[in-house]
Amino acid sequence: MNELRFQDGNEEAAPPREDDEGLYGMTDTTVQEIAESLELGQEDPIREVVAELHTADLADLIEQLKSKHRTLLFEVAGDLIDPEVFSEIDESIRDDLVEDMDPTEIAAVVTELELDDAVHVLEDLEEEDQQDVLRELPAEDRLVIEQSLSYDEDSAGRLMQRDTIAVPEYWNIGQTIDYLRDTQDLPNEFYEIFVVDPRHHPVGTIPLDRAMRSQRTVNVRDIMNREQKLIPVDMDQEEVAYLFQQYRLASAAVVNESGALIGMITVDDIVDVINEEAEEDILRLGGVSEDDLFGSIMGTTRTRFTWLLVNLLTAVLASIAIGFFDATMEKIIALAVLMPIVASMGGNAGTQTLTVAVRALATRELTSNNMFRILGKEAIVAFLNGTAFAILIGLVAWIWFGDLSIGWVIAVAMVVNMLVAGVAGMAIPIALDHYKIDPAVASSVFVTTITDIIGFVAFLGIATLVLL
Amino acid sequence: MNELRFQDGNEEAAPPREDDEGLYGMTDTTVQEIAESLELGQEDPIREVVAELHTADLADLIEQLKSKHRTLLFEVAGDLIDPEVFSEIDESIRDDLVEDMDPTEIAAVVTELELDDAVHVLEDLEEEDQQDVLRELPAEDRLVIEQSLSYDEDSAGRLMQRDTIAVPEYWNIGQTIDYLRDTQDLPNEFYEIFVVDPRHHPVGTIPLDRAMRSQRTVNVRDIMNREQKLIPVDMDQEEVAYLFQQYRLASAAVVNESGALIGMITVDDIVDVINEEAEEDILRLGGVSEDDLFGSIMGTTRTRFTWLLVNLLTAVLASIAIGFFDATMEKIIALAVLMPIVASMGGNAGTQTLTVAVRALATRELTSNNMFRILGKEAIVAFLNGTAFAILIGLVAWIWFGDLSIGWVIAVAMVVNMLVAGVAGMAIPIALDHYKIDPAVASSVFVTTITDIIGFVAFLGIATLVLL
Repeated sequence: MNELRFQDGNEEAAPPREDDEGLYGMTDTTVQEIAESLELGQEDPIREVVAELHTADLADLIEQLKSKHRTLLFEVAGDLIDPEVFSEIDESIRDDLVEDMDPTEIAAVVTELELDDAVHVLEDLEEEDQQDVLRELPAEDRLVIEQSLSYDEDSAGRLMQRDTIAVPEYWNIGQTIDYLRDTQDLPNEFYEIFVVDPRHHPVGTIPLDRAMRSQRTVNVRDIMNREQKLIPVDMDQEEVAYLFQQYRLASAAVVNESGALIGMITVDDIVDVINEEAEEDILRLGGVSEDDLFGSIMGTTRTRFTWLLVNLLTAVLASIAIGFFDATMEKIIALAVLMPIVASMGGNAGTQTLTVAVRALATRELTSNNMFRILGKEAIVAFLNGTAFAILIGLVAWIWFGDLSIGWVIAVAMVVNMLVAGVAGMAIPIALDHYKIDPAVASSVFVTTITDIIGFVAFLGIATLVLL
Repeated sequence: MNELRFQDGNEEAAPPREDDEGLYGMTDTTVQEIAESLELGQEDPIREVVAELHTADLADLIEQLKSKHRTLLFEVAGDLIDPEVFSEIDESIRDDLVEDMDPTEIAAVVTELELDDAVHVLEDLEEEDQQDVLRELPAEDRLVIEQSLSYDEDSAGRLMQRDTIAVPEYWNIGQTIDYLRDTQDLPNEFYEIFVVDPRHHPVGTIPLDRAMRSQRTVNVRDIMNREQKLIPVDMDQEEVAYLFQQYRLASAAVVNESGALIGMITVDDIVDVINEEAEEDILRLGGVSEDDLFGSIMGTTRTRFTWLLVNLLTAVLASIAIGFFDATMEKIIALAVLMPIVASMGGNAGTQTLTVAVRALATRELTSNNMFRILGKEAIVAFLNGTAFAILIGLVAWIWFGDLSIGWVIAVAMVVNMLVAGVAGMAIPIALDHYKIDPAVASSVFVTTITDIIGFVAFLGIATLVLL
């Protein structure tokens, strides 16, 4: 009985509790069934499912379908698809869909959306197409959207809704409630009422729950929070997200340069920003510039190429370093066999440290106040693990090649390289961050280049000195 | 004028707008000043700052201080520190602080916290210490906390607050508002009113803004949303976070096995979960099991050791593979010099693909419906980039060693390894996910082992066949 209530539109028998995927909205089976129905041209079951799905699930369904089936779906059930779906769909797929539409159609979708979603759809269009769509919009919508587009991408201005509830300080709760009951043009959802002075500058805020608990005669002034976080319209969205997290905000007022209230941001938009920013860090650390799962083959090939090219250059550098020791390796071929181990361990130790550093910089736990302390700690950790692995690999090499001195050489090289890895893994992200370069993008290439080169040079260099 | 309003407790001249760090709460300078005052034993300026800081900022301050200074801070201004700080502080540091406190002191802190925060502090204690603290708590608090602790860590039961607003279906808005005005024991913050049947099963929900806009005579039944997401108390927090994101929820009802309302979860707790889960993926991909920035030296060394040990084993495996070709390398030492390039490029291409795959699995964009399509795309992308880099490195090797056949050998090995990297980078995370193994933890080691070994074997093997 309760199981059923979890489901939107999937009326089959409830799947077992263990299968989380099945409990909510769309299931993998739904997608398969829709794909089959599209193949067979059965319109009714498709229209039935589309009509019942939550927009977020419908967006997922569209993402999961093949490109051919997507087009078919819009032909068969386009009239049932809520325009809001366009704001939920993955960017690459949205671009594909929008490409097939003419400006009038896009404009029809855009007018149905909330401001931030409308802007989201429009901001990805080519400048020219954007203008074509804007021309098709009613004057009022166009003005508001153009205003929003005039703010920087990724700024508070793009995130905010323009509708807010603002009441003067001298009102009481009764007046406020009557105002809410009488006004039609209110934001879709809001969690607090802003109190403003005659210049429309925010002076306080009343959470809705507090307003509801108060008697009608209570003055707004007496129950409002005077401390509030005001978001400048040009603030970067990452900064806005930080504020929401740090101070556990449900919503916040956005102000213009002169400090007047011009909009508000709610926490549900921030959830998306947090996800985007975390995704950016994950992808950048992995050497990918954007989420290209749904990207075209050529687009994906091109964006990955750049990072691989950088890597090729660093790999060639490392090979040049190895080349200086070709005479040594010719004499003792065991060195060539063991050589990758030191570099690989350094690379991994460096990656561990830089991952912690990049994350700590993003969450502002690593600052100028504690960086030397933490750098010192990393050096000690690196030295301890370096020593442990030096002993391990030294023994392995000694037994493998029956030569104690090879064991000593690789052990010393291991300590050196892991120490360098630990220090570089922490210092490089800090330095990049200091110079306002995103440490998630660039740290990895710097650190692994260093650990590769130091790894090879330390091992082969010490071997040349000791063994020849 | 407006600038000042952004600040909590930092009364100096507002720093320039560009310096985001300065705009809010605590600055790096605040930390330095506090550290100096603690050094000098100046109590007044410390107490002044502590009294004015937001708890979240105070938690940051404590994190930033040296361990010695932390203890001093509690001695000098402990009475001004809101217990809530304990729920905001990094786990390792909290453990240190709590270790110095006796059960009565911890109990005093815990009683002041909201349920989810209290549980957060208690769940990290050793079983025995936990019992000691629980014994010191008032019976009522103890029962509620014990109940909460009985749910799995990372389950909805741990996240939820037990206080909710629930009204019967037959009430009207006027009765609801009067009830809110008359009841003292309400949750701290809430965004919706739950409507329940006589068995206390949720049947609908009214967002607060809608309640406020409605006339007193309107029936609850007529304006409630009948569709709502009910969260089973044992649902994993990652799943809960997914629901909140997918359906843009501000709060949701938590139900027990029989479907009765027993609590609610609000979006601010979900923001923390989203962060935790994203952090987990980032760290695991980097080979770190937890955020150890503030961890002890020995603890950090130990947790990093495991991953490095796995890496050592795979590196030795790769060396064994190389060892089979020592005769070939002895004859053509250029092979030893070039050997790391193919492996390194494969490793990076594999990491790119697996990063996209891990992320897409986490966001549920990669499913059984599209995995073959996407695997096919990755293979083509890998082949295209493999060919591009084969041509590049082939030319470089030819010119460098003046030997066209070495150029051919490395080019062919490059295409082979990058193709393997692309396919493995996508297939391995999918396979791990299928067998319920976290792809973020294990993918990287599998993929790089494969690309290392295939890289070395393809290059040296083809060389042995062609050049000898």
